[in-house]
Amino acid sequence: MGPEQSHLVPLLKGSKPNVSCFSVFPHVWCHDFVIPVLILFCSCHKLQESLLSSASGYSNYRGILNWCVVMLILSNARLFLENLIKYGILVDPIQVISLFLKDPYSWPALCLIIFSNVFIMAALYTERRLSVGTFGERLGTFLHLINLSTILCLPVATVLFVSSMTPVGAVFALAVYTILFLKLYSYKDVNRWCRDIRQARAASWGLREASTQVSYPGNLTHRDMYYFIFAPTLCYELNFPRSPRIRKRFLLRRLFEMVFLMQLLVGLIQQWMVPTIQNSMKPFQDMDFSRMIERLLKLAVPNHLIWLIFFYWFFHSSMNFVAELMQFGDREFYRDWWNSETVTYFWANWNIPVHKWCLRHFYKPMLKRGVSKRVAQAAVFLVSAFFHEYLVSVPLKMFRLWAFMGMMVQVPLAWFVGQFLRGNYGNAAVWISLIIGQPIAVLMYVHDYYVLHVQGPSAG
Amino acid sequence: MGPEQSHLVPLLKGSKPNVSCFSVFPHVWCHDFVIPVLILFCSCHKLQESLLSSASGYSNYRGILNWCVVMLILSNARLFLENLIKYGILVDPIQVISLFLKDPYSWPALCLIIFSNVFIMAALYTERRLSVGTFGERLGTFLHLINLSTILCLPVATVLFVSSMTPVGAVFALAVYTILFLKLYSYKDVNRWCRDIRQARAASWGLREASTQVSYPGNLTHRDMYYFIFAPTLCYELNFPRSPRIRKRFLLRRLFEMVFLMQLLVGLIQQWMVPTIQNSMKPFQDMDFSRMIERLLKLAVPNHLIWLIFFYWFFHSSMNFVAELMQFGDREFYRDWWNSETVTYFWANWNIPVHKWCLRHFYKPMLKRGVSKRVAQAAVFLVSAFFHEYLVSVPLKMFRLWAFMGMMVQVPLAWFVGQFLRGNYGNAAVWISLIIGQPIAVLMYVHDYYVLHVQGPSAG
Repeated sequence: MGPEQSHLVPLLKGSKPNVSCFSVFPHVWCHDFVIPVLILFCSCHKLQESLLSSASGYSNYRGILNWCVVMLILSNARLFLENLIKYGILVDPIQVISLFLKDPYSWPALCLIIFSNVFIMAALYTERRLSVGTFGERLGTFLHLINLSTILCLPVATVLFVSSMTPVGAVFALAVYTILFLKLYSYKDVNRWCRDIRQARAASWGLREASTQVSYPGNLTHRDMYYFIFAPTLCYELNFPRSPRIRKRFLLRRLFEMVFLMQLLVGLIQQWMVPTIQNSMKPFQDMDFSRMIERLLKLAVPNHLIWLIFFYWFFHSSMNFVAELMQFGDREFYRDWWNSETVTYFWANWNIPVHKWCLRHFYKPMLKRGVSKRVAQAAVFLVSAFFHEYLVSVPLKMFRLWAFMGMMVQVPLAWFVGQFLRGNYGNAAVWISLIIGQPIAVLMYVHDYYVLHVQGPSAG
Repeated sequence: MGPEQSHLVPLLKGSKPNVSCFSVFPHVWCHDFVIPVLILFCSCHKLQESLLSSASGYSNYRGILNWCVVMLILSNARLFLENLIKYGILVDPIQVISLFLKDPYSWPALCLIIFSNVFIMAALYTERRLSVGTFGERLGTFLHLINLSTILCLPVATVLFVSSMTPVGAVFALAVYTILFLKLYSYKDVNRWCRDIRQARAASWGLREASTQVSYPGNLTHRDMYYFIFAPTLCYELNFPRSPRIRKRFLLRRLFEMVFLMQLLVGLIQQWMVPTIQNSMKPFQDMDFSRMIERLLKLAVPNHLIWLIFFYWFFHSSMNFVAELMQFGDREFYRDWWNSETVTYFWANWNIPVHKWCLRHFYKPMLKRGVSKRVAQAAVFLVSAFFHEYLVSVPLKMFRLWAFMGMMVQVPLAWFVGQFLRGNYGNAAVWISLIIGQPIAVLMYVHDYYVLHVQGPSAG
C-alpha cells in the first residue's frame, strides 16, 4: 500500500472528505467512493497482541472488583431467598428477651452487674489508703490481688450455682466483669507508677504541679474512677485526651447505626445462623465428612457476616457513641486489620483497647523482666485464650477447651503465615483463617451443647 | 503534664533509659521505674478519629478485594460440594458425542459444513468475472445477494427437514454458515471498493503497483480466499498484517488451554447447569414467583461462569491459536469490556471481529447514506438480534423471539445506564445485566422446549 498511500493521505488529512472529494474526483459520486478510500487506507487490522496475553502489558482489571461485589450480592441474595422459602420468617424480637430471662422475677445477671460497684469502690479506697501511706505497697498489692481475683471468681460461682441464669445473660455479665478486671488492673498499675514517680521526684527535685492537669493523688475521686469505668478504653490514664465538644449529628448517626445493626444482628442469627446450625447436627453426629465440610462452609458465610456486623456495631458505632457522649478524645478502637498480611498484625490491630492493655500491662512488663519476645508473645496469646475460654465455657457450663485451642492455634498459624506467605497471599490466609476458624469453634460448642442438653437427657 | 515533661524528656531522649536512669536516680531500682515513666509520658491515648469515620480521611481498603475473592471461592466451593453430594458425578464425556450425532451413519451438520465450499467458490468466481468486466456491477451484486441469501436459507431448510440433525449439531452448522455469510459480505464489499478506487485512479492518475503487497485483482486467488475464510476475522483486507514467526510455546499454551477449558466447560454444564435447569422446571410451570427468582439466581452463577470460561476459551485461546498458526498479526479479538461503564461500550468491545464488521460494513455505510447515529445504532442491535434469534430458534425448531427480545432490550437498557449511572455504578449495572439477563433467556427457551418436547407429547 506504500506508494499509493503517500498520494492519497494529504487529500484525506485535515479537510472533510465529503467536500474535498468533489473537487479532486468530480466525476465520482461521493459516498460510493470516499468510504472505501477511508476504510481501505485507515487499515482495518493492525499488528497487535490480545489484552489478556502477557505480552500486551495490559493490567487494568478495575471492573473485576465490581464483578466480585455484584457476584457476592447476587449469590447472597439467592441464599437469603432460599432461606426464606425454606424456613419462612423466623425473626422474633420477643424471643430475645427470653434469652436473658428465664424467670421474669429474677434478674441474676443485672444484679451481678450492679454488685460490681463494690469492687470498683474497693479498688478506689485501697488506692486512697496507699496514696496517703496508711497501707504499705505489699499490703496494697495483696488487697488488689484479692479484689481482682474475686472479680474473676464471683461471676463464675454465680453462673454455676444460680439456676435462673441463662447462657446469654451469663455471657453478658462475664464480659462486664472481664472488662472490669482489665480496667482495675490498669488502674492499680498506673497508680503504683505514679507513686514511684512521686517518690523518685521527691528524692531528686521538688517540682511544681501543673494547674490544668490532674496529678497524683488528685485523681483518686469517684468522678475520675467512674469516668474511667465507662470510658471506651482499658488503659487508665490520669488525663485522658478530650474532644472539644459533643457533635450531635455524629452522635445521632452512631445511635441509629447501633439500633439498626442490633436488629440486623438478631435477625440474621435467628433467620440464618440457627437453622443452619440445627441442620448441621446430624452430619456431625454421623461423622459424615463431606457433609460436615459442606455444612461448615454453609455456616461460614452467615457467621462471618455476623462477625463483621458485630465488629462494626461494637468497635465503631457503640464505642464512638459512648466516646462522643463522654467527650473521650481517643477514637482509635481498631486499626486497618482488613489489610493485615500476617496473623500477628491482625490480632494487634482489630481490637485496640485490649491490644493496648496487653502491651502496656502484660507484654512490656514481661520484656522488662527479661522474658524473650517470642515467649512474651505466646504468653499474651495464652492469656487471651484463657479469657476466650472463660467467656464461653462458664456460661455454657461446659469445659471443652475449644475456644482456648482456637486461640492457641493462632501461634503456629502466625508463624506459618509469617514464614511462607507474603502480601496478598498472607492477607488471603488471614481472611480464610477468620472465615473458617470461627464456625469450626462455633460448631464444636453447639455440637457438644446439643449432645449434652438435647440428646443426652432423652437418651438417658 | 506540661512542666513535669520538660524536665524528664531530655533524660529519656537519645540514651537508653536502662542505663541513664541509674546515673540520675541511683536509689530507684531500674525496671520498676523506667517503665512507668516511659509509659506515663509516652501517653497511651491521643486525640484521634476512628479509621471508618469519614473525618479520618482513611481510604486503604485493598484487603477488601482479597476478602471478596476468598468469599467467592469459599461459597462456590460449598456450592460445588453441595452439588456433588446431591447429584454424585454427572460428568460423562461420551454423552457429548451423542449431542452431535443421532444416527452414527448420518452426519448432516458435517455435510452441511463441507458443502459451504460451494458458496465460497461462487463468491470467488463472481468476483473474478467482475474484476475483468465480464459481469457488470448490477449483475455481480445480484449474484452475490443470491449467494448470500442462500447461505442463510440453506442450513435453515436442512435443519428443519433433516430429522437426524441434533440441536447441538445444528447450532454448530448455523454458526459456521453465519460466519461465512459475514465474511463473504465483507469480501464482496472490499472488492467493490477496490474496483471503485481502480476506476477513480485510472481517471485521474496512472499509479505504479507496489511490489511486495497484493493489489486488486491479484487477490482473487483460492489461496487468498481460504486464508481469509480461516483467519480469525470477519473483515476482508487485501493485505492482512502478519506476525513474523510462529511462537511454538505460545501455540502449545493456547492448545493446552483449549483442550483443558473445553473439558471444564463440558463438565460444568453436565454437573452444574443441567441439574439446576431441570430443578427449575417445576417452579416455572407453577408460576411460583419467589422460587422462580431463587432458581434464576441459582442458575445465574454457573451460567455466568460458563459464559466467562467460554469467552476466554473462544476469544483468547482458540482465536489466538488459529491466528498464531496462520501468522495472522491482529490479535485484538476483544478489548477491556470488563471495565465497561455503559452497555454500548460492552457491546462494542467484547466481540471485536463482529463489532468491526458491523462498523465497517453496516454502521458507517448507513451513516454515509444519511441515517442518524441513533437509528443506525438501533439497526445494528436489530441485525444482531436477528442473528442471535437465528442461531437459537432454528436449531431448537421453536420461534419464540426470546433471544431477539433479549438483544432489543439492550437499546433501552443502554439508554438508561448511559443516562443515570456513572463510573462504578455503570460498570456494576453492566455486570448485573450480563449475569441476570442470560439465565432469563436460557430458562425461557428451556422451559418452552420442555413444555413442547417432554411434557407436550405425554399430555397429548
